[in-house]
Formats: sequence, C-alpha cells, structure tokens
Amino acid sequence: MAKVAMLGAGFIGGFYTYGLHGLRSRDQVQVIYSRDESRGKAFAKKHGIPKWTTSMKDAVNDPEVEVVVIGLPNNLHIEAVKLAAAAGKAVLCTKPLGRNATEAFEMLEAVEKAGILHGYLEDLVYTPKTLKAIESVRAGALGHVTWVRSRETHPGPHSDWFWTKEISGGGVLLDMGCHCIEIARNYIGKDIRPVEVIGIADTLVKPIEAEDNALGWVRYENGAIGQFETSWIFRGGMDLRDEVMGTEGTIWINNFLRTGFDMFTAGGKSGYVAEKAETEKGWIFPVGDEVAELGYYNMFTDMFEALEKKTSPMETFYDGYIVNEIMDACYQSAKSKKWEPVKLKVWRGKEKADPISEIRDYDKDHIFVKEERMPDGSVKLILKNKKTGKIIQKIKKKV
Amino acid sequence: MAKVAMLGAGFIGGFYTYGLHGLRSRDQVQVIYSRDESRGKAFAKKHGIPKWTTSMKDAVNDPEVEVVVIGLPNNLHIEAVKLAAAAGKAVLCTKPLGRNATEAFEMLEAVEKAGILHGYLEDLVYTPKTLKAIESVRAGALGHVTWVRSRETHPGPHSDWFWTKEISGGGVLLDMGCHCIEIARNYIGKDIRPVEVIGIADTLVKPIEAEDNALGWVRYENGAIGQFETSWIFRGGMDLRDEVMGTEGTIWINNFLRTGFDMFTAGGKSGYVAEKAETEKGWIFPVGDEVAELGYYNMFTDMFEALEKKTSPMETFYDGYIVNEIMDACYQSAKSKKWEPVKLKVWRGKEKADPISEIRDYDKDHIFVKEERMPDGSVKLILKNKKTGKIIQKIKKKV
Amino acid sequence: MAKVAMLGAGFIGGFYTYGLHGLRSRDQVQVIYSRDESRGKAFAKKHGIPKWTTSMKDAVNDPEVEVVVIGLPNNLHIEAVKLAAAAGKAVLCTKPLGRNATEAFEMLEAVEKAGILHGYLEDLVYTPKTLKAIESVRAGALGHVTWVRSRETHPGPHSDWFWTKEISGGGVLLDMGCHCIEIARNYIGKDIRPVEVIGIADTLVKPIEAEDNALGWVRYENGAIGQFETSWIFRGGMDLRDEVMGTEGTIWINNFLRTGFDMFTAGGKSGYVAEKAETEKGWIFPVGDEVAELGYYNMFTDMFEALEKKTSPMETFYDGYIVNEIMDACYQSAKSKKWEPVKLKVWRGKEKADPISEIRDYDKDHIFVKEERMPDGSVKLILKNKKTGKIIQKIKKKV
Amino acid sequence: MAKVAMLGAGFIGGFYTYGLHGLRSRDQVQVIYSRDESRGKAFAKKHGIPKWTTSMKDAVNDPEVEVVVIGLPNNLHIEAVKLAAAAGKAVLCTKPLGRNATEAFEMLEAVEKAGILHGYLEDLVYTPKTLKAIESVRAGALGHVTWVRSRETHPGPHSDWFWTKEISGGGVLLDMGCHCIEIARNYIGKDIRPVEVIGIADTLVKPIEAEDNALGWVRYENGAIGQFETSWIFRGGMDLRDEVMGTEGTIWINNFLRTGFDMFTAGGKSGYVAEKAETEKGWIFPVGDEVAELGYYNMFTDMFEALEKKTSPMETFYDGYIVNEIMDACYQSAKSKKWEPVKLKVWRGKEKADPISEIRDYDKDHIFVKEERMPDGSVKLILKNKKTGKIIQKIKKKV
Repeated sequence: MAKVAMLGAGFIGGFYTYGLHGLRSRDQVQVIYSRDESRGKAFAKKHGIPKWTTSMKDAVNDPEVEVVVIGLPNNLHIEAVKLAAAAGKAVLCTKPLGRNATEAFEMLEAVEKAGILHGYLEDLVYTPKTLKAIESVRAGALGHVTWVRSRETHPGPHSDWFWTKEISGGGVLLDMGCHCIEIARNYIGKDIRPVEVIGIADTLVKPIEAEDNALGWVRYENGAIGQFETSWIFRGGMDLRDEVMGTEGTIWINNFLRTGFDMFTAGGKSGYVAEKAETEKGWIFPVGDEVAELGYYNMFTDMFEALEKKTSPMETFYDGYIVNEIMDACYQSAKSKKWEPVKLKVWRGKEKADPISEIRDYDKDHIFVKEERMPDGSVKLILKNKKTGKIIQKIKKKV
Repeated sequence: MAKVAMLGAGFIGGFYTYGLHGLRSRDQVQVIYSRDESRGKAFAKKHGIPKWTTSMKDAVNDPEVEVVVIGLPNNLHIEAVKLAAAAGKAVLCTKPLGRNATEAFEMLEAVEKAGILHGYLEDLVYTPKTLKAIESVRAGALGHVTWVRSRETHPGPHSDWFWTKEISGGGVLLDMGCHCIEIARNYIGKDIRPVEVIGIADTLVKPIEAEDNALGWVRYENGAIGQFETSWIFRGGMDLRDEVMGTEGTIWINNFLRTGFDMFTAGGKSGYVAEKAETEKGWIFPVGDEVAELGYYNMFTDMFEALEKKTSPMETFYDGYIVNEIMDACYQSAKSKKWEPVKLKVWRGKEKADPISEIRDYDKDHIFVKEERMPDGSVKLILKNKKTGKIIQKIKKKV
Repeated sequence: MAKVAMLGAGFIGGFYTYGLHGLRSRDQVQVIYSRDESRGKAFAKKHGIPKWTTSMKDAVNDPEVEVVVIGLPNNLHIEAVKLAAAAGKAVLCTKPLGRNATEAFEMLEAVEKAGILHGYLEDLVYTPKTLKAIESVRAGALGHVTWVRSRETHPGPHSDWFWTKEISGGGVLLDMGCHCIEIARNYIGKDIRPVEVIGIADTLVKPIEAEDNALGWVRYENGAIGQFETSWIFRGGMDLRDEVMGTEGTIWINNFLRTGFDMFTAGGKSGYVAEKAETEKGWIFPVGDEVAELGYYNMFTDMFEALEKKTSPMETFYDGYIVNEIMDACYQSAKSKKWEPVKLKVWRGKEKADPISEIRDYDKDHIFVKEERMPDGSVKLILKNKKTGKIIQKIKKKV
Repeated sequence: MAKVAMLGAGFIGGFYTYGLHGLRSRDQVQVIYSRDESRGKAFAKKHGIPKWTTSMKDAVNDPEVEVVVIGLPNNLHIEAVKLAAAAGKAVLCTKPLGRNATEAFEMLEAVEKAGILHGYLEDLVYTPKTLKAIESVRAGALGHVTWVRSRETHPGPHSDWFWTKEISGGGVLLDMGCHCIEIARNYIGKDIRPVEVIGIADTLVKPIEAEDNALGWVRYENGAIGQFETSWIFRGGMDLRDEVMGTEGTIWINNFLRTGFDMFTAGGKSGYVAEKAETEKGWIFPVGDEVAELGYYNMFTDMFEALEKKTSPMETFYDGYIVNEIMDACYQSAKSKKWEPVKLKVWRGKEKADPISEIRDYDKDHIFVKEERMPDGSVKLILKNKKTGKIIQKIKKKV
C-alpha cells in the first residue's frame, strides 16, 4: 500500500487519481496540491482525498506521503522533482519530462543523485494492447522491427496552458510527440540508439505561436524508422493508432476510435462518450473504460510494484530524457530542413547495433528474394544469382 | 480487504484468481480447494495462496475466509452454496447458477434464508464495454430497446466435464446461453418480465449427448426480443458479440475477435494469443488484457464493494434463477417445437409492462411513418392519414 | 447487346437502369414504362432512354425489345410476367417474385410454359463479396455449412406502396426476408431442401398493418439453419451483413456500413452518402459504388450472358418460388407459434440430404472431440472413449 | 466501342484486359503484343483476343486498333509511346510514366505534339471509394485538406524486372510511390503546386540494389503535406490505405485488407484469396472483385469516354510527368538528407495558392481556438485575446 501526494488538480490529475484509486486498489492519494484552493478542495471531495493544500512543498513533505505524482503544467516539473528529491521520496512525473532536454537532464541527475525511485508516466506504452504487443515483438513474432508508426491526433488539448508556449515549452510535437517517440522506442528496442531525426512542425490552422501539426522520422542505428504523427487539428475525436512492421509480421493497434464498440444514437442522450470525442449524435465510438484503455492501471501497477520490490519501473526519467533529446533534434530539424543528429549526454543501451538483414540462400547458386501464390495456383519465386547478381523468376506449378 | 476461499482450481478458478489479485488489489485468496491435491498445491504456488485443501468444507469454514467463490463444475454448485449458507459467509457462484431452475431456486432460497450476500458471477455483463453500453441505454441513447442479439460461440470448452451431461446438466445452451440471456435482460430491462421462449438445441457435429449448437428467442412482456446464439462448433476463435437495437439507436459490441488489435505473424512465435484462439500464425487478433476485457475486474469490484457497503451486487442468485428458468423453457421448446412460457416461481420486476410504441403526429391530419434523404438531396416523407389510414409519400425539395 | 423494356420508374427502376447502363455496357434500355407520364418522361431523359410509355403492354411488345425487366410494386408482377410470356420475351423480375407462393407458382408456370428465359433479380446474392464467398464455400473452405445469418435492416422503405399491405402483400418479412432466405440457400446449398420454418413477424413501432420487424429460422434437411433478421425500425443506416458458419471455417461479410470507408465531417457537406443513410454529419460510412456493391452489375451480367449463351442464370423464377413458399410458412408460423413445414409444389434439388457430421477417430480407442492451446503452451485434447462413451481430457506438453 | 492493342502479356496486362473486357463491356482487345510468342498466344487464347504478335510496331499499327494500352516494363514505355504518337493513336500508359522525369517529359511532349488522347493509368485514384471520397472533398466535406497519408506496401512485386534497376529505373519508391503521390495530389488539389520533398529510400532487407522501403513528405504551396509510405518488405498481404485530414473532417479508406469481408478457414481450400495475399489458412481477408476494387473498370470507363467525347481523362501524361518530378526530387533528398525543391518544366495549375487558414472570431475581443465537451457535461472553450495574445479557458456549464 502506497500513500501518494498528487500535484495538480487538472484533467491529468483526475485521470491519475482514477487510475490510482480504481477497482480494488490498495493505494491512496493522501494529499492534493493545487494552486487554487477551491479547485483543490473540490478535487479532494470528489476523490475522497483526506487533505488538500496550496503549498507544493507541504504536499511533498507530508509525513504520510511516500510517493509524489506530478500532474502539473510542463514549466513546473523541475521544481516539483527537486522538492521530491530533497525529501528523498519516490517521484513519478507526467510526460513530457522536461520542456527540453536540458531540463530533463537536470531532473534525471537530481533523482539519481538522491537515489530515489523515479518513474516516467508514459501511459501509452502501458495500454493493455501495447503491453501485449511489445511482449509479442520481444518474443520474435515480427522478426526484426523495421518501421513503427505511432499516431496521436485530436482537436487540441483541454487547458489554456498547453496553448501558451512559455508554459508548455512547445506545441503538439512536445505534447504528443513524446508519446509516439517512446512507443516506437519500445517496439524497436530501447537499447538501440536513436541516431538522427527529421521533422515537420507547422502552425497550419490555429492562432497560436507553437506548432499545431508535427510529423517526424527517427532513424535508429540498425536502420529502423520510428515515425510519429501528431496534430491538434484532427477532426473526429482522438486518434490513437500504432503500426509496427517487422520482417516476419505486422501489428496494427487502435487504442481509441475503433475498438469494437460502435453506437448510433439519433437523440444525443448517450452521455459523455470519451476524451476528445467531437460528437454525441449519429455514429459514435465510445471506449469501455478509458482509465484502463489508456494504460493508467497498468502504469501505476508497474510503478508501485517497482517501489515495493525495489526494482525500476519500465519507464524512468532516463527514458524521459532520451525522448526530450529526440524532440529537441526534431525541432532543430524542422528549422534547418535537414536530418539532425540526436546528441545524448548519457546512453545506456548497446554501443553498436547491427543493421537489420534477412538475406538467406534459396539454393547453392541463388539468394531468395520473394515468393507468391498466383491466381492459377502456381507459386512464383524471385531469386538472385549469387555470381552474376542477376534477378530471375521461376514458376512452381501447383501440384 | 476481503479474504476469499476459492473453490475449484481449473480454468475458471484461475481466471477468477487473476481477477481477484490483479493490478493493485487489496483482496486475497486465502485458501484454494481442489479435489486433486497436487492441482490444489500447484495452484496455490502459482497464485501465491497461503493454503490448499481437498476438503470443500474446510475451505469454506476456514476462519479467515469471509467470501466463498465457487468455480466448480455445475453439479457441485448446490453443495458449495449450502456449505457457505451454513457458515453464514458471502457466496459468489459461477454461471450457470444451477443445472436447471429447480437447483437454482433451491440455492436462491438457501442464501436468502441465511441472509448472506450472494453474487452471480455473470462476468460478461461486466465487460467494460457492456457496462458503458448499459449505462447509455439507461440514459435513453437508444430510445426503447426492441431487440438484442448476444452471441457467444467458440470451438468448445476446455474441460472434459463440460462435455459430460450428467455433470454439466446440458450442452452449449446451458454453458453459454446463460451469458447471452442475461446480457439481453440487462439491455431490455431487468424489470421487464420474460414471457416466452422458442429455442433450437441441436447436436450437429460433435460425438456428444448434449447439444453443440443452440439458438433462441426470448420474448419480453413489452414486445422486445432477446436473441441468443451459442455454439461449440464455431471456427476461428471465440466470438463474443452483442448488438442492441432501439427505436432511437443501435449498439454493436465486439468483446474479443475485433477489438482494434490485429497481428500478422509468419513465424508463429507470438505466444499465447487469447482464450480459444485457433491459430498462432497468419492474421491473429489478440486481446490486450483478457481478465479486464472479460469483465473480471469490474465484476469482483462490484461484488466486494457491495459486501463492504452492505448493498447488493448488480447480479445476484435471483438473476441466476431467472436465467435458469428461461433456459429450462428453451430446452422444453426445442423438444415441443413451439413457443413455451417462462414460468417464474418468484418475480420481482414490474407487474405489467407497456408495449413499445413510438407513434407520433406529423401534422393534424397525419401520423409520421418515416423520412429519408434521396440521392438528389430532396427528403421523402412517408405519412399515414389519420382518418383514412392511407399511407402517402411527400417530397420536400432540397432548399 | 440487349435491348430492354424497363417497367417501373421508381427507385428500383433507377438502380436497375444504372446497373444496365453503367461502366462501358453494351446493353440499353429502349423504353421505360411508368403509369405516370411525367415520371416516365423524366426518367427517360435522365437515363438517355429513347422512348417512354404509360402502357405496360406497349412497352413489353415494343418490337425492338428483347428483354423485359420488372421493377414494379409487388401486386403488378404477375400481370407483367404474363405480358412478357405472351410476347415470348425474356423476363427478369424484381424480388419478391410474388406476394405469396400461389402468385409465384403461377408466374413460374407461365414462363416455363412460354419457354422464355426467366431471371429472378435477387441482387444481394450477386454482390462481389457474396459471389466470391459462395465460390469459396463451394470449394470447401468452410467444410459443411451449419448456420447462416443474413441480416437486412434499415429505417424503412422509400415508397408509400411498400407500407400498404394490399399492394405489397406483406411487411418487412416479405420485403427483405426474401433476400436473406435466398442468401442462406446459396451458402447452404440450393439442392438441400428447406424443411421447416419458425418465424416472428411483429409490428413493434410503426403505425402500419404489416410487420415492421421479422426474424426467422429455416431448417434444411441436412440440419443446417438459415437465420434471417429483417427490420424497418433499425437506426443507423442500412445494415447488410451475412455470416456463415461451417465445420472448417467462418465468413463475415459486411456489404454496407463498414466496408473500409469512414468519413467524419463537421460540416454536413458530404453530399448523398448512401441508400438509407441517416446522417450527413459526424462519422458516416459511405459506399464506394453502390450499384457495384449491391450486386447490380454482376446480376445483369449473369442474366444477359445466360440469354446470349442460351443457358439459365444463377437465379430463376424457380428460386423466387421456393423463397415465397418459405416466407408463406414463416407467416404461418408467426401466427401458429410453432415450426411449420415448407410445402413445395415442385422440388428440383436432392431427394435426400445426409445430416452434417464430422465424427473422426483420434486413435483406435477414442473419437476426437476437440483440441486447444492453453496459456502455458500445452495442448489440451478432449476425447471420447469408443466403448464406454466416457469423455476424457489429455494434456500434451509443449515441446 | 473501342478496339485496343494491348502491349504486354504480364500480370498488369492481364488485369487491364479483365478491366477492359469485364462485365458487359463494349470494348475489345484486338491484338496482344508480347516479346515471347508462346506467352502472347496463351494470353490471346485466355482472353479471347483475335490476334497476337511479337512486333510492338505491328500491334500499334494494326489498322483496326484505335487505342494503344501500355502494360510493359518501365524501360519500354518511351518506345511504345513514340510508336503510338507516330501512328496518331490514343495511348494509355501504365504507371510510373517514366523511369525519371526526363523520360516522362519526353513522352508528354510526344503525345501533345501528335495531338492524340493520352491517359495515365493511375488506377488507384479510380477505386470506387477514392472517386467518391475525392468528390466529397471537393464538395467541402473536409474543409481545407491539411494532410494526406497514402500507403501502399506488400511483400514485393511479381516479376523479375521490377527488382532489376536498369529495367525498372528504381525500387519501391518508383514502383508504388507514384500511386501514393498522385492520390495525395487528387485530395489536396491538382492545381496546388508541389514545392518541396523530403524522402527516405532504404534497402533494409532484400538483396537488391534499389530501395525496398521508402517514405516521403511532399509539401504543397498552401502548406498541406502529402505523406507516402511504400514498402516491398511488408508482411500480411497488400496494404492499400489512405487517410485524409481536413480542417472540417477526416477520411479513412482501406482498399484491400479490411473491406468488410473476413474469412477463417482451417483447411486452406479457399482458392486464390487476393493479389499478394500471404496466407490461405486461418483468418484471411479476400477482396470481392479485385478488378473493380482496384479501380480498373472506372479507369477505363473514364479513358474511353474521354476518347468518345473528345475530352481529356482525369489522369493524363501531364499528371504522370508531375509525379515523376516529385519522385526525382525525393530520390535526390534521400541522398542529400535535406528537403529538395520540386522543379517543374511545365506547370498548369494555380500560379499562387493561399495558405490554409481557419482563424475565426469568437466575440469582439477573442479569437476562437477550440471547444470540447467535458465528462461532467460542461463545455470548455479555449480563446485567444485579440489584443494581449493571451490564451484563456472558459467553462460553459451544462444547461
């Protein structure tokens, strides 16, 4: 059983608290910190939290609190992390870790120096589907992963601070690119070094300073590409899809808009549909249990079990730092209009990764290229002659 | 926090224990009962359960145990329920409650006389999608529900006892019809009386005495139909789909085979895919977290919260009894080849339900029948003259 | 090249004409018959048809016309068929063939006596997916077909006459049950005799005399069940889905609402979406080419090729007659509340069909019942002892 | 009615001939040219073509032939086009038009100088879904298009020549990028100038000289991005998906692997499933009518109607040339690792396109940023103060 200080009474603080208290949980939020007293009080009442405070320091230093959960705007992460480090308490921080890699690195150093458990609250690698898919990929179901597409788009965030660059540190690339980049890393292999990035960060539609539409490719040392697609100008709800391509297989995951739950309603009385749903009439696509499907239960289970077992959770501040470096390179690339290197101050993965390769012999003279069943039932082989390099085709008749 | 005696160390006992212990649960299975000592011991070890026993009585009467969970073959439910009633402990029983309505009624009487909490472990009304859908239906999103299709089909159950009629009490109708019938009741309204049933129970393919394929329609007092489709001869995995039709809307739920998680694997190294999956190569459709998606977490949350709050769970032995009566009528109808009445020894819903009806005026002379947009943009109205009864059509040009 | 008289200038006449003239067709509607001169004239202009007439007889007897296509209300089919028979011209009639089996039989006799080509315009067995699926089923991809579900539901038909029982002959069962019944027959085998029927025909919501909701099961001689689901009170568009269950496989077809074409539009400017679509905003599901997807191209190709090659099309008046007999039995059953026999005046299929059966030996002592992969990688076998009849389970460990 | 010379008796020649002859077509392939006499003869027999020849010139100059259709390897397009131009006959050429923009421009000049009809056989903009989607986009259903994703991936092409760079001119970027680029152009607007490109062209897995995996972004003058994803190393069949994002809506199209037709077969007797399908057992996803779904019928209908009406088809050599220039810039960018300009020798679209913009006032002091329904039913507005530039939020309570 863990007692928690929740920092932040906004949308994400609410989701986290549902995640912590949900089902038959043995964990409990002990104190809620909000700058605004009435919000904090209301939050405490709604979630059955014993205490509220407008002092971040008091919340962190509450003697009953063992774990600090940060659900604050991006510009306040560093302060909160330092308070937790000073208090020697475990700290779990929402995404992105920093507004940039410099901040992230400072946070990483702080928690490692303090020797406390640190978790990076990247919920989307913890969705039930993603966890199972990662397990399959690690078991070899897809062969070598060559490409990952991770997409998170919706019609824009809930709170004013996201839209204000000095607070958030950036637009949609920072807000959601962090999810997509870390999802791809998990599939490609967290020990494979991200080497370079090209990105687009455009302000196409919204009257804001930061980007409202961002795309990027991250090239990993073995040749794999992590593609991210993020947008605050998508229409139709929240699109959370991932695709993984491997030499032996493919995965397609849809976490939100098409999960086997379709509803048509003429009357618009269906209640709250799902986060960022745009319609309440006509065909709508609710999510059964958002807290579960967005990975919150699994994420906190991993984090608190690591605390109890004195291990490390799946996602730590180190991961948050790597992601911030990739995003910094991406912003750089969006300006320079060329591929930019990812410069890591610390790298704990493989020093050298071999290129993906699947070359195999067909017979002593030929390398296998491809085979396919034709409409007449025969099989067509494409082969490469080892000596001449010439590519030929060969038909095997249907028996 | 609740301490549990788990009766039965088979497939369902395992699923229940995962459901009870999963995530950061505060509940704990204290003792496992299995007829077979080595199975019980292995089960205890696997799930971290302190005690095992080959005496059902000892398990139930263990002084630490507050709640008895029954995951036994159908022929043993009644004995286990009576032990729990005698011990005055809360009892949760797997589906179907009885092998027939006589057994079910006896169990209902036993627990009510003993004044203990009783829960009917109908997990499929607790899937995250189903709970949310029921909530929408109750909020009026679909208007009046006119028809529910609930389908559960797969290639046959895991254990030998299911296939043996004296133990199970019946075939696929009893095994899975109970799910489908109760799902439909929840959508149509548990207070609307089921009045009559027609059913098919055929042994089409398997070398068994009981039916391997069963279909049925249950007619409710307000005219709504609950349709169930069950089979042990379905090929392709486990098909768990529900459809709800209402006067104002429609719901389609797919709990298993198409939930937004598609995987192709050439190599067959994807590991365990999902319950009753038939393939491990090619296109497969895993489920993220089966324990969650099949409703176990939500079900036990409801049951144990009812225990703590001294209320009643969503599904009780009374519901189990109603379902058994409907199934008895269905078996009867499969033989008599005509609609058979559902005879209820006890009915706690509405005494009289009005027929579904949505008649509304279009203007003072006409009743509205229908309207539709045509390819040229005009709208075609179908109206009924109140006096003459004549049905006419009327075109409203596109403006 | 064929010259056609189109009888009927309504919705279906329009669809047929698109089907006949579409793409680079060599066929041509030569004359359009409509009771209403202005409608006929407008229709002729829209579709580039040289002549229009208000005389059905003149249309049929036009010397250039070789083929008569009937797209008239149900009560006029018989008159039109007799005119074509008298003229000795090929005749293609829309569904249902008759308002009842008596009419259908009279039409069948008329065309057979006249020795003319006769086609039953059951477009939904000609959808591209259905044709390919039937081919796969016939090739054995599903083993023995045990059950077919065919569903056609929407919010009600376009024209006033459908809603008026004296003209239409019945409600949704007659209007759409005919599609579903014939689809199932094609999968189960058109040579397997339909033996008995149970049906529901309720008027749940609409202010009409005929049924607005109808369900049925048709039992075939080999034990297979053809299930149909039809409704005029479905909300959400036109639901055209078929499912086929066989001993070796499964088919799921969605012809309309989920075909890989999803659109979200905030503005409602998407134009005509599809037949019976209910919304023009939010998430909508258009159909690429309705004329193609509803089977019209394939249907007329089959019919006119049969004419040129002097063979018989896939669907003839004989099929239409069988379907009418099944529907008559279904109406009867809805009243009698029991299974009713299908009485066929003429039967051209198998005299006797063997029951579906898949019993096979596992070893010399056991019959195979089932096998399944368990979560731990082992395989569980369910077997039946040949002598004792006892069912046992056997675990094969993962190697 | 048009008489056709088909150049090329390979896979694509076969598909084209099915497309030309299918349904009740009035067009006819008159002569088939193949270098290999026996293949030509077999092709002629299979498709009922009166003549075959091993002389490309004879085929083109056959006096009965009006239209030349080129289905040859890429290195032979230019020769064939010149023959047709010399003969003054209409010419339709498969994709890509040239192996590079230089070749494509030469072909464009040749046909324009000769004054003949020229069609670029970009079938994938003619799929039924794509045509309907383009129509909706043009009608304004999506507002301004901001981003298009077009994806074509499969496990590699059928014939040896594709894999041989001197014949094909390139790898998967050239082979399939041409489809994706032109699809995006159609949605974004063919009159909006493509200005710059960044691309990836890697040889990740196959033992070949050209790229087997290619990705790219094309930036259009108004800010819209056309994203393409192509691969010869995808596993699972042929993935043909398009997504369109607009300021007012979204389109998702799946042309192949998920079109509402699912089949499970244990036995592998389903016959030919679809082009580039990888499995014949387990869950498979056939396509109803590949010739229709891949756009061949619609494409030839457009081309031959243009011929008869003396207009221009939707896709001409000019379009083919634009696509080749974009691909040349993409190859350049894959080497230079930076965005490369698209240099067009001829541009017939808008001289200047305005940037996408959707700024609108909320009230006299604020610009609208976003609104969203919250779980408690309230609506949260995000607004920007016109004077201060500050972004604020505002809650409208649920009434």
